[in-house]
Amino acid sequence: MSERILGLDPGLAILGFGVIEYDPAKKRDLSPDIRVVDYGVVQTPARTDTGKRLCTIYDDLHSVIDEYQPDLVSIEKLFFYRMGNTILVAQARGVVMLVLAQRNLPFVEFTPAQIKQSITGHGNADKVEVQDAIARELKLKSIPKPDDAADGLAVALTAWFRMD
Amino acid sequence: MSERILGLDPGLAILGFGVIEYDPAKKRDLSPDIRVVDYGVVQTPARTDTGKRLCTIYDDLHSVIDEYQPDLVSIEKLFFYRMGNTILVAQARGVVMLVLAQRNLPFVEFTPAQIKQSITGHGNADKVEVQDAIARELKLKSIPKPDDAADGLAVALTAWFRMD
Repeated sequence: MSERILGLDPGLAILGFGVIEYDPAKKRDLSPDIRVVDYGVVQTPARTDTGKRLCTIYDDLHSVIDEYQPDLVSIEKLFFYRMGNTILVAQARGVVMLVLAQRNLPFVEFTPAQIKQSITGHGNADKVEVQDAIARELKLKSIPKPDDAADGLAVALTAWFRMD
Repeated sequence: MSERILGLDPGLAILGFGVIEYDPAKKRDLSPDIRVVDYGVVQTPARTDTGKRLCTIYDDLHSVIDEYQPDLVSIEKLFFYRMGNTILVAQARGVVMLVLAQRNLPFVEFTPAQIKQSITGHGNADKVEVQDAIARELKLKSIPKPDDAADGLAVALTAWFRMD
């Protein structure tokens, strides 16, 4: 039986996601089979109020879970940037945490540095290095776009790398 | 037709609420009739994970709205305190904003200083002054308890004071 990890990069304007699939029985193989199921973004309508955008995140994240049926969710940890922005992102993140709890989905969290370290081997990698490493690791023919979807795949892949 | 204002003081551990009712036609009377419908708190189970607590806020706030059918919601604005705490409160607030948007409820927001100013006449009033003023204004026989419920009434009353 294969298992799926949904990676999420939560934001208010755009929420990136990536879904990977693997066979837990083969996790320790020298060349374990890990596949990309899909990746994309949930975009919330610009110039509408926060409440409407949070409704979009709530509805669309439930739909993403319905569609991909993940076994585990991996989320990028929220760090403090600018006050106003952090509060907006934290509000969006609250809705994400709500949906995961409503669906009884286990989740793991990783800092940006942990993600970079897991994917490229060093915690200060830039965006291009991370995206190249994702494409290589997941045998993708091109770099996943947009950036937020690539971030979703990166955090999903980090959960897979860090599994026992 | 009377109208109702639901005041909310959002937090992750405890969400205070207060419901007041008034007759819009008599808003400009010398002694307008303003009544407390109810007040209380939504408490989330301590020592459970954030997701479960956010589920409680989501479900219970929908129930509060079902029960009291407010026409307007008044919320205390989130200020930055400590980083970790602010992110937790902002996550809870995200769920509150989601519920209000799902119910198509209009809302207004006030800072703590605006609330103190409206209720007592000065922005540096302490908690006891605010609570005494609420009890007097709303003709309550005793100070509403707990503090979070009193804060819910205070922010509801602020919306009423500041209405055109």
